[in-house]
Amino acid sequence: MSPFPPSVLAGSSEGLAEVLATLAEAVDTASTARRPDGPVPPGTPAEVLAAASRALGPAGLPAEGLGTKAALQLLTTVLTEHGIDLSHPRAAAHLQPPSLAVAVAADTLASAGNASLDTYDSGASALAVERWLIGTLIGLAGLGERADGVLTPGGSLSNLMGLLLARDATALRRGIDAREQGVGALPGPVVFCSELAHFSTHRACAALGLGEAAVHPVPVDEHRRMRPDALAAALDSLGPGRTPVAVVATAGTTDFGSVDPLPEIAEIAAGHGLWMHVDAAYGFGALFSQRLAGRLAGLDLADSVTLDLHKIGWQPAATGVLLVSDTTAFTSLDREVAYLNPVDDSEAGYDGLLGRSLQTTRRPDAVKAAATLLAYGRTGMARMVDACHGLARHAERRVLAEPRLELVAPAELTTVVFRYRAAGPALSDELNGALRRRLLESGTALIGRTEAATDGPGSPRRVCLKFTLLNPTATTDDIDGLVDTVLDAGRTCERLFEEGAA
Amino acid sequence: MSPFPPSVLAGSSEGLAEVLATLAEAVDTASTARRPDGPVPPGTPAEVLAAASRALGPAGLPAEGLGTKAALQLLTTVLTEHGIDLSHPRAAAHLQPPSLAVAVAADTLASAGNASLDTYDSGASALAVERWLIGTLIGLAGLGERADGVLTPGGSLSNLMGLLLARDATALRRGIDAREQGVGALPGPVVFCSELAHFSTHRACAALGLGEAAVHPVPVDEHRRMRPDALAAALDSLGPGRTPVAVVATAGTTDFGSVDPLPEIAEIAAGHGLWMHVDAAYGFGALFSQRLAGRLAGLDLADSVTLDLHKIGWQPAATGVLLVSDTTAFTSLDREVAYLNPVDDSEAGYDGLLGRSLQTTRRPDAVKAAATLLAYGRTGMARMVDACHGLARHAERRVLAEPRLELVAPAELTTVVFRYRAAGPALSDELNGALRRRLLESGTALIGRTEAATDGPGSPRRVCLKFTLLNPTATTDDIDGLVDTVLDAGRTCERLFEEGAA
Repeated sequence: MSPFPPSVLAGSSEGLAEVLATLAEAVDTASTARRPDGPVPPGTPAEVLAAASRALGPAGLPAEGLGTKAALQLLTTVLTEHGIDLSHPRAAAHLQPPSLAVAVAADTLASAGNASLDTYDSGASALAVERWLIGTLIGLAGLGERADGVLTPGGSLSNLMGLLLARDATALRRGIDAREQGVGALPGPVVFCSELAHFSTHRACAALGLGEAAVHPVPVDEHRRMRPDALAAALDSLGPGRTPVAVVATAGTTDFGSVDPLPEIAEIAAGHGLWMHVDAAYGFGALFSQRLAGRLAGLDLADSVTLDLHKIGWQPAATGVLLVSDTTAFTSLDREVAYLNPVDDSEAGYDGLLGRSLQTTRRPDAVKAAATLLAYGRTGMARMVDACHGLARHAERRVLAEPRLELVAPAELTTVVFRYRAAGPALSDELNGALRRRLLESGTALIGRTEAATDGPGSPRRVCLKFTLLNPTATTDDIDGLVDTVLDAGRTCERLFEEGAA
Repeated sequence: MSPFPPSVLAGSSEGLAEVLATLAEAVDTASTARRPDGPVPPGTPAEVLAAASRALGPAGLPAEGLGTKAALQLLTTVLTEHGIDLSHPRAAAHLQPPSLAVAVAADTLASAGNASLDTYDSGASALAVERWLIGTLIGLAGLGERADGVLTPGGSLSNLMGLLLARDATALRRGIDAREQGVGALPGPVVFCSELAHFSTHRACAALGLGEAAVHPVPVDEHRRMRPDALAAALDSLGPGRTPVAVVATAGTTDFGSVDPLPEIAEIAAGHGLWMHVDAAYGFGALFSQRLAGRLAGLDLADSVTLDLHKIGWQPAATGVLLVSDTTAFTSLDREVAYLNPVDDSEAGYDGLLGRSLQTTRRPDAVKAAATLLAYGRTGMARMVDACHGLARHAERRVLAEPRLELVAPAELTTVVFRYRAAGPALSDELNGALRRRLLESGTALIGRTEAATDGPGSPRRVCLKFTLLNPTATTDDIDGLVDTVLDAGRTCERLFEEGAA
């Protein structure tokens, strides 16, 4: 006598058919919507967001619903007409890949089932899928038999969790139970990382109560890699009131793809009994490629590793992972909870993966990643990695060949950082910033920007442009078109700057 | 000249059609798979997980991929044959609803587009959808014009973020920059919450460096609500070396759905200049119902609010939210990052929502929730809430009518806590635990358990059984069947206990 038919629930047989029918209508809607010509809708952000908001209507729950069909139609239209298109060959801004169809289809099944990984009886088979994926990633990383891992909502939270485990393990070695007593008892904590480490390391230190002042940035060499000698010197000169907590090595800096010298850092860390966390959020995917895997040599020496399959891995967000070399590291996250994992149930095998996470309910993001790795295998994944690396190398050559462009860093993985050379150097920072906004506002190309020391370590930071090439279906012709578009926009901006109108 | 056709990418027109075709095959596979008769596969956890693992094969990336079709078929089979079925009318264990078809379809579109909310150019329209949803939820909560919010990976992380904002705001009022200097400078931090608060409050205190010792549990009354007099007394008797950081009120305890007296707690908090965080992860959805909304009176007085639309809201995980009464509270999370939000871009409106989150890449979980709220409206959402509440009331009546069952707490929202009365009281805890495992291992029913003071505040905690009723398509007949199943299992367990065989 329920007023709701079984088809409203995605997990029922009828509901799965309903999801399919609803999606088919949405695909129809998407095909008739006015998809922008380029990868981003033309207009300023204010204009684009206002148009999207107008289409959605004012915030507020309507008294009566529109029904499934109309609601999906509305959202499909808003996302298609006012959203970005990562599958467009001129979308090259962020470490945000176009997602693979196989991953999206598998993720739909995960959403329909709505399993959760915290307990056996909230997940069952989903736990087996995550264990399969973690085992597979441990194998790729070369970590040993005691290794373990967990999926996370993204690299920033993986880094936070890695530092949390490092913090509590460091405290424990000094007889401090940081989990119970807080970090006030840990004198002068220090976290080392390269000066090019992702900002989430700093933000994690703030969140964990260590304070951002705990971060000790270590200078990089001319290849934008942490200098081991500088790390060693910093450790040796640490005052007696300080507690070294961890060194965060970066395997694939966001902008340059540069990889810190992991073996040397590991040796220094081992010598000081220091936790080594490797932020391989971006770089981990290079392990799929025989050509590039060697760049991550030494990853197996880490105590903990961050990786994001929603970067090189082509998963929809989030597919973050934290690996640890020793499963006992998770002790600091483990909790006994009467409604989730009471002792007698745990003894009977009813435990889930609650004790490896800061989350309780946890979505089985492993399903989409497992489907992808099984579908493509190492060969298929390698071809996609190599394709994107090849595009980056092609872009690098084009930049080098263009007199108006200046290469800032070589293409290590799938990014290329460069500058448009303005006639007068004074305006150059402004011009590069304006150039990128012009591309976005015209809707023709979606490229990235950053700031970098363009004249060697320690030189002033200048505004740079960046291609992040993660579309394996793009061609070298597409890259040529992208470079031409940048050159056009640069010329236009220069003219406008000269006319004083920019 | 790319070796990859456009259809491999879900976000292209060809790819969206590919997702649809792949899913159609998966639905076929699911319909021929051996779906268990009950909501959970029969067998012990070890047996079920071993079967799932065998089906998946050993962990490890295969050299050559199986292709999309075979990979999806494998995962669909594993999830269907060895997974739980939340759409089954005898699935009643956790605050984990069967997800709605409309939400799953909309979430598929979100995955296909793979927009991210950190910057304008990673999300565009996705930002507008999140702002729409946050505005709608602020309206439901009754928060004022300065209110703001953000989606999170779940209630546990919303609670962590709420306490992070409370910690840093409290420190700042005392002249301490906790973000920079760490929490060591904040003497004796204290976080108050009811003794029935979710364990994620304790875990958050550990993560944030306050330590679990910072948690001051406040006793509850006979209705399992925090006692305001006890809170006031605890605050008044706080020594000079202690810093009250926040009070966490619970609006909907996990087991009982009880709601702390928010207006009284707010008054006490205001009197002490104390941050009031409300964990409404479970209870927030009651606001959809005219019949139940009054139970959350006083929610509008909170400084921050946790809510989970993947509990009452029928979303696939995760659809966590943190609301704040004043948008400036987010300052402690805000960061300026050269590659994401440089000053000149921010001035031109290119900012995204990076400054409201601990994440960087952030999936647009708002899409599925917005689609659901638009499709169902307040009337449709209310009908689902009321249907589940009605099922809980029916279960309560059945428990009261059964001599072998003992009601532990009335059905406040959608849970019912009860015990199977064993002939001899000594074995009763063991028996209730065994009864639930028996149901799960037979595959007939998926019910919850917890521990509760069954004889009033302060009495010993006993093992209880729990129905969490979140399936709006279930009927009172289904509930009768569920209760009968529990009675059957109880009798069997009693017999086995008497025979000494359990």
